[in-house]
Order: sequence, then C-alpha cells, then structure tokens
Amino acid sequence: MADTTLLHELATFLAPNQIITDRDVCHTYATDWSGEAGDLPIAVLRPKTTEEVSQILALCNRLGCAVVPQGGMTGLAGGATVRGTAVALSLDHLNGVIELDADSATLTAWAGTPLEVLQTVADDAGFLFALDLGARGSCQIGGNVATNAGGNRVIRYGMARDLVLGLEVVQADGTVLSMLNKMAKNNAAFDLKHLFIGSEGTLGVITKVVVKLHPKVNGANTALLALSDFNAVTQLLRYSQQALSGLVSAFEVMWQDYYSAATTVGGKRAPLPATYPIYVLMDMQSADPQATEAQFEAVLEHAFTEGWVWDAVIAQSQGDTNDLWALRDAVSELLPHYAPIINFDISFPISRIGQAVEELKQALSVSYPDVNALFFGHVGDGNIHLSVGPVPNNDKAIEYAIEKQCYEIAQRYQGSVSAEHGIGLHKKPWLHYSRTESELALMRSLKRTLDPNGILNPGKVFDL
Amino acid sequence: MADTTLLHELATFLAPNQIITDRDVCHTYATDWSGEAGDLPIAVLRPKTTEEVSQILALCNRLGCAVVPQGGMTGLAGGATVRGTAVALSLDHLNGVIELDADSATLTAWAGTPLEVLQTVADDAGFLFALDLGARGSCQIGGNVATNAGGNRVIRYGMARDLVLGLEVVQADGTVLSMLNKMAKNNAAFDLKHLFIGSEGTLGVITKVVVKLHPKVNGANTALLALSDFNAVTQLLRYSQQALSGLVSAFEVMWQDYYSAATTVGGKRAPLPATYPIYVLMDMQSADPQATEAQFEAVLEHAFTEGWVWDAVIAQSQGDTNDLWALRDAVSELLPHYAPIINFDISFPISRIGQAVEELKQALSVSYPDVNALFFGHVGDGNIHLSVGPVPNNDKAIEYAIEKQCYEIAQRYQGSVSAEHGIGLHKKPWLHYSRTESELALMRSLKRTLDPNGILNPGKVFDL
Repeated sequence: MADTTLLHELATFLAPNQIITDRDVCHTYATDWSGEAGDLPIAVLRPKTTEEVSQILALCNRLGCAVVPQGGMTGLAGGATVRGTAVALSLDHLNGVIELDADSATLTAWAGTPLEVLQTVADDAGFLFALDLGARGSCQIGGNVATNAGGNRVIRYGMARDLVLGLEVVQADGTVLSMLNKMAKNNAAFDLKHLFIGSEGTLGVITKVVVKLHPKVNGANTALLALSDFNAVTQLLRYSQQALSGLVSAFEVMWQDYYSAATTVGGKRAPLPATYPIYVLMDMQSADPQATEAQFEAVLEHAFTEGWVWDAVIAQSQGDTNDLWALRDAVSELLPHYAPIINFDISFPISRIGQAVEELKQALSVSYPDVNALFFGHVGDGNIHLSVGPVPNNDKAIEYAIEKQCYEIAQRYQGSVSAEHGIGLHKKPWLHYSRTESELALMRSLKRTLDPNGILNPGKVFDL
Repeated sequence: MADTTLLHELATFLAPNQIITDRDVCHTYATDWSGEAGDLPIAVLRPKTTEEVSQILALCNRLGCAVVPQGGMTGLAGGATVRGTAVALSLDHLNGVIELDADSATLTAWAGTPLEVLQTVADDAGFLFALDLGARGSCQIGGNVATNAGGNRVIRYGMARDLVLGLEVVQADGTVLSMLNKMAKNNAAFDLKHLFIGSEGTLGVITKVVVKLHPKVNGANTALLALSDFNAVTQLLRYSQQALSGLVSAFEVMWQDYYSAATTVGGKRAPLPATYPIYVLMDMQSADPQATEAQFEAVLEHAFTEGWVWDAVIAQSQGDTNDLWALRDAVSELLPHYAPIINFDISFPISRIGQAVEELKQALSVSYPDVNALFFGHVGDGNIHLSVGPVPNNDKAIEYAIEKQCYEIAQRYQGSVSAEHGIGLHKKPWLHYSRTESELALMRSLKRTLDPNGILNPGKVFDL
C-alpha cells in the first residue's frame, strides 16, 4: 500500500485539519506515557463522528493499513504507542457528555471525553462516577474502558468494566455496533461489550460509552494504621468490610520500605514513626461521614484489642486526610529518586500476598542487594505496585533478569503480570506467565474473527 | 452418526451408570422448568470429572453429535430443553465446594453444586454469597453462571456475572480452559470468562466456578410503601440510594393490579389498603440493622415530606419482614389463578419504565379488555415482570399476538426482551427486537469460532 493512496482516499471524507502529517505533531502521537519507543505515524487522524471512524476503518481494512487507536496517551503499557507503519486514530475530537439520565443513574459520553469531565458532570447532578486514577485530567473514558482501568476505588466500585453498561464500537471493517444499553439487567443473548473492554484497541474502536453512576458521597472517614504483619492486614480487611457493611472505599497498604522512603526521600510528614512493619491507609466514603465516625472508630478499637493494629492516626479534618493520602500519592515524586526504575503492577489472591511479597523481597535482596525494592499497593483488591531501582548501569539485561525473577514468583503464586495497566507492548514477553496456551489460542482465534486483516493495533497484547 | 457408535465409544471411558438410556429417566431430562416441549435425549451422560466432560465433548465433536448441557433444569427460557437428536450432559455429579479462601473472600465450586449450598458454606464462614433466587435449592451455580442469573439482590450486588471471578470451561473440541482466577484485578489480556457467562451453554461447558464473597449481613431494615406514581418511585429510589450510601438491597415495585391480586386471590394479608396506585418494598441489609434504623426511617420521613410516599409500614420484627416479602413472593401461588398465562421478563432504562408500563397497560386493555395484566418487578434494576392471563381459549395465535404487542413496546422504549431469564428457545423469536443485525452477526461469528461443528446446545439463543 502506498501512503499516497491512503492519504488521497482519506481526503475524500476528512477535512484537511483532520489528517495531520506534520512530523513535529506526529511525533507527539508516537509514544504514550509508558515511554516505550514509538515510530512516527503515517498520519494522525482526528474523526469527529462515528461515521468518520467507520469510514477510516473500512478504508484501512481494505488497504491493509494498521490503525493505532489513541485516547489520552496516559497508558503505562505501550498500548497506544505506534510501532511500524500505521496511522494513529486519535479520539480527541469525539469529546463531550451526550446525556446524563438521572432517573436511570447513567451517563453517556463520547469516547474522547476526559475522565475528569465525567466525574464533574456526575458530581454536578448529585452522583459519583466512581472510576478514579491519577491521570484523570488527561486520560479519556474510551481509553479507560479499552484498557479496563483500575485505580483507587476498585475495592468498592470495581474496575472500569464494572462501571460500563453500554458501548458503541466500530469493528475493523467499519461495521458500527450500537450497544448503548442503559440497563443493569439485559440477558438478550451474548453480552458483546465485554469483548471490547480491556482488549486495548485490538478488537474494535470504542466511540461511545454508557456508564453507571453511583450515589454521591459527602466525604470519608480516613485513618493511617500501623500493623504487625500481613496476616494482621487481612484480618483487619475482612473484619472492617464486615462491620462496615462493605463500605470500605480504599484499603492501601505500604510496606516499611515504601513508608520509610516516602517520609524521607519523598519529603512527606510522617504521621506515624517509620519503624512498623506495615501500614494501611483505610477509608470509608459515605453520605454522612459524621454519622459513621463512631462505627469507624469502633472498628479500629476492635483492631487494637485484637492486636492487629499497633498504632493509628485518624484524620480529624480534610487537611489531615490530604496529608495521609499524600503518603500514598508520593509515588510520582518518590520514584524518580530511584531511576532508572522498574515498576511492577502485579496482583495475587489476597491470601497469598504476604508470602509472595516476602519471597520477592528475599529473592531481590539476594540477587541485587544494592537495589531498592519498594512495596505498596491497592491490597484490598490484590494489587501490588512494586518498584525496583535504580537498575545498575541502566543495564537492559539486568532489567530483564529482575523482571523475569519477579514474574516467575508471580506465576508461582497464581498472580497476574498485569493487575490494572494492561499488556500493550511492555508486558507482552510475560503474558504467558499468567495465561495458558489454551487461553492464548482462544484469544488469537477471537482476534482473527474480529479483525481478519489484522489492522487493529497490531503487535499489541500478543502476536498472532 | 449411528447412536450405537456413540454409545459404544462413550462406554470406553464412562461407567455404565454414567450413561443413562432408560426412557423413563431420559424423559425427566427432556424439558426444563420452562415447559418448552422437549425431545428424549439419546442418553443422559453424568461425568464426574472435568476430564470426562472433555472426553465427552471431544467425542461428540468428532461424531457431530449435539450436546445439551444441563444444570438444575430450573431455567424459564428452555435453554436446557432437548430438541432433536442430542445427548443431555448433566452436571449433577460435578458437585461440591472445592475451597473457601477466607482471606481472599472467594469460593470455588464444581458447576453442579446447588446455589443454596454455596450460600450456606459462605454463611458458615462469615460471608454472604449474594446471588439469590427462588430456585436456590434446585438450581446449580454452573447454570446460574451460564445463564447470568439475576434475582432479588441485583440492585446491590449485580448479576451472576458480577459475582464471578474465575471459571473452568471445556470447549466444544474438549480443550479445557483453566481460568480459576481469584483476583478482583487481572488485566493480563482478554477476560475470556465473559464469553461463557450468559451464553446458555452454546459456547462451552462450565465445569468449575470461582465466585466472590461479600461481607455477611445480619438483617435488614424493611418497609412497604404506597406511592403516588412512578415519578415518585424514581425520586424515592435515587434519594434512598444517596442517603443510604448505596446500601439499598431490594427495591421491588408492585403496581396496584398486582398488589390487589396478591391481597385477594393470592390470600396475603394487606398491610396497606389496596387503593394506592403503586407500592414499593424496600430493604437495606447491613451488619447492624438496629444501628441503621434511624437513618432508614429518616429517609422515609423525607419521602413523606416530599409527597412521594403516601402511606407506609415499617417491619418491626422478622415476622413483619416475612409478611411484607410474602406479598412480593406471592407470584408462584398467584399466577396459576390466571392460567394459561404469559410471563414477561423485560427491562427498561429506569427513566422510561413509568411511561412504558402505562403504554403496555393501555395497549393490553384495548386489545384484550377481559385479560388481566399484573405489573411488578425488580424496578431498582429496571426489571419488570409482567404477567398476562388467562389467554382466551389458550389460543396460541392470541398468545403470539400479545407477546408481539408487548415486545414491540419494549423495543420502542429501548428495553430488553429478556432481563434475567435468558433467550433459550422461548425468547428466540423476539431476540431481534433487542439486538441489531450487526450484533447478531457478531454473535454468529463467535459461535462459529468457538463451536465450528455446532454441537453445543444447537438451536438455542439464535439460529446460525
């Protein structure tokens, strides 16, 4: 296929400012936040309607031209990075909230709408759109859904998948699937939306999203707790969830290495001494945090009595709450101090986290005694973010060896090599640690069925 | 294929008592609770291991013999009914809880385990397994998942799909997919389990299920409320969900026709006069119903002040609670009085239910003024169970005409012809009212990809 044929045909239905070939601009669409090396796209295409997305895909499918769908480019696995000869399909201009249906508690938006806009529109109407992550201002709901984003509130509200009711999707050949379902219950045959959620743009391009809204919350009861060991962490988690009727909305764990780093190198105030083995940041959002305060404190008291919790700070003001969360959110300032760094996003059955983390620590301290390993994560939903660095001499062979060592342990504990970031390019070498050959074979069959010419984000997630 | 070849080959790996050909026994496996007319299976097969399921499917796939997977046979859409020449594959002997992982809050069970057993095992360990439906003693978790069952607690805990973390599935060619994931977060490529959930046995046979457990509840605050109109119902729903932090665990609506029938023909005590336009049975389960009582009553008081609620009874004891639920559960005693009856299981966006119900009432009263139409349902999740009867002279043409009239209205309001029962045989003629041609085409592609010889539950859900 000659690029000129493609560009010529594109120009028959897209305006000149929807086909960007300027090298400098194209350069900014080569690579996402993962930093995976990217290639210049042939062009960046900026459709403004579903019909234009459909026309672009039909054309590319006919010409055999690869298409890389792109949202806010905030992904950490390289799913939106351009590799080889391809056009970048930016969803930027499919932007805006289409409808908020208050009676049904649903919101319908174009795929290119920033997450934060959905949050704000929901909030203004007296609802909570529960998906939340650090990149909220830049990421787009279409990308969130395509990568099944996680974030801070998964323990209570689930992943992006759990918040999606309906989708509009354009298939590889340009067919538009209109599945803008607004209902919690719909068993009219296969629920096709789940094919596209978390498929990282390899099976179709999401153009519209219907999400469910939750009741608005008016604050949270928040505490930072110091615990004896991981066994105490799981006891606390199960007891709190039971006593608080499942309202725990964050249960973040920081092992000593992380807490210590955050309160020294990271420059955060230490509300508790850095001498405890493990720390939990727990909160419970509700309609009326004052009314739930006694209940929350009773849980902490019980945890003291049981010996699970050794020390605690309860937030007395929004300022306190912000200070406590600053410890957990210190990641972005903290990690550069350990560059070049490897960031893991692994998950385990919660019952195995304690042992898995000990084994990871032990293995790393033997193999790389001079390299730091910081353990923290959304433990309430089994997700560990381990950061290891600096990698000696920024040596790629050492980086690979560290990854291999850690992913082998993840595999042994039935963990996942990607809890919430996805596979993209970055995790491809490790996918077989978490998926069997039979699973991978079925994934390849699905890919061939939905995208027979292999034009949708080729080379991402797995190779055919 | 000669049946003798099949039976001969089956006997090489199954014991004689695992291959039932006795006509009387086979007869009991012909038809499920839907009452859809069924054919005698060639044989009823009762595997005891995943390996045996795999061998059966590999053999049937090779010989081109149709296989009808069967759980507790409690489905209402005919998904487990035998049609044509086929073996029935009963999951009865794949029965039992394999593991309860308390730290991870997960339970793993064989597909043939009755739902009630999962509920009991969870309860004994201090958890709630939140799926609940009338057939709990007979239905099996594998069937619940294969049909994406709904039930009474969907508003708080979601459908069966939302409670599944992992599956073991045998594909049409006998390949075993081991996806016994126990983690809330796992983005290691496509989430294949969603293909099989709700596919009614047409894409694979589920042999094991990993479900998530919720914190145990210790009771509920329950009230029966009389309201002015459907607009008041949605106001009450949204306000309650907000003020009670999303803890509403049932929000059942009964229109006057239903309430009146339940308290006369149905023989239930009427806690409120049958003169109000619409009734809501609302409850909130929690760890400590005494502690939440004031909060619950404050919500009702607000609803009075706003004029949404005209009359109310709050349960003061478990006996009261049972009496209130008896009104909603009167269905099974009540409906036989209107036989021959047509039972609908439709859903709508909540914002459209009021108008859709008025239109349905109006249309039916004009077309069939002498036929009763009772409206009730799980309105908190958009699900209406409309029952229409008696059908004059049990005339199939009239039955069809009534169905057509109602499903056309469902279509016009973007509803679903099946909220929770599935499609099976019964809803096949109406599936295209809720799914576009493009969606149906993709479903057919998936079916051909996963079951190229068309042996899995052929003729169910849609035709190829």
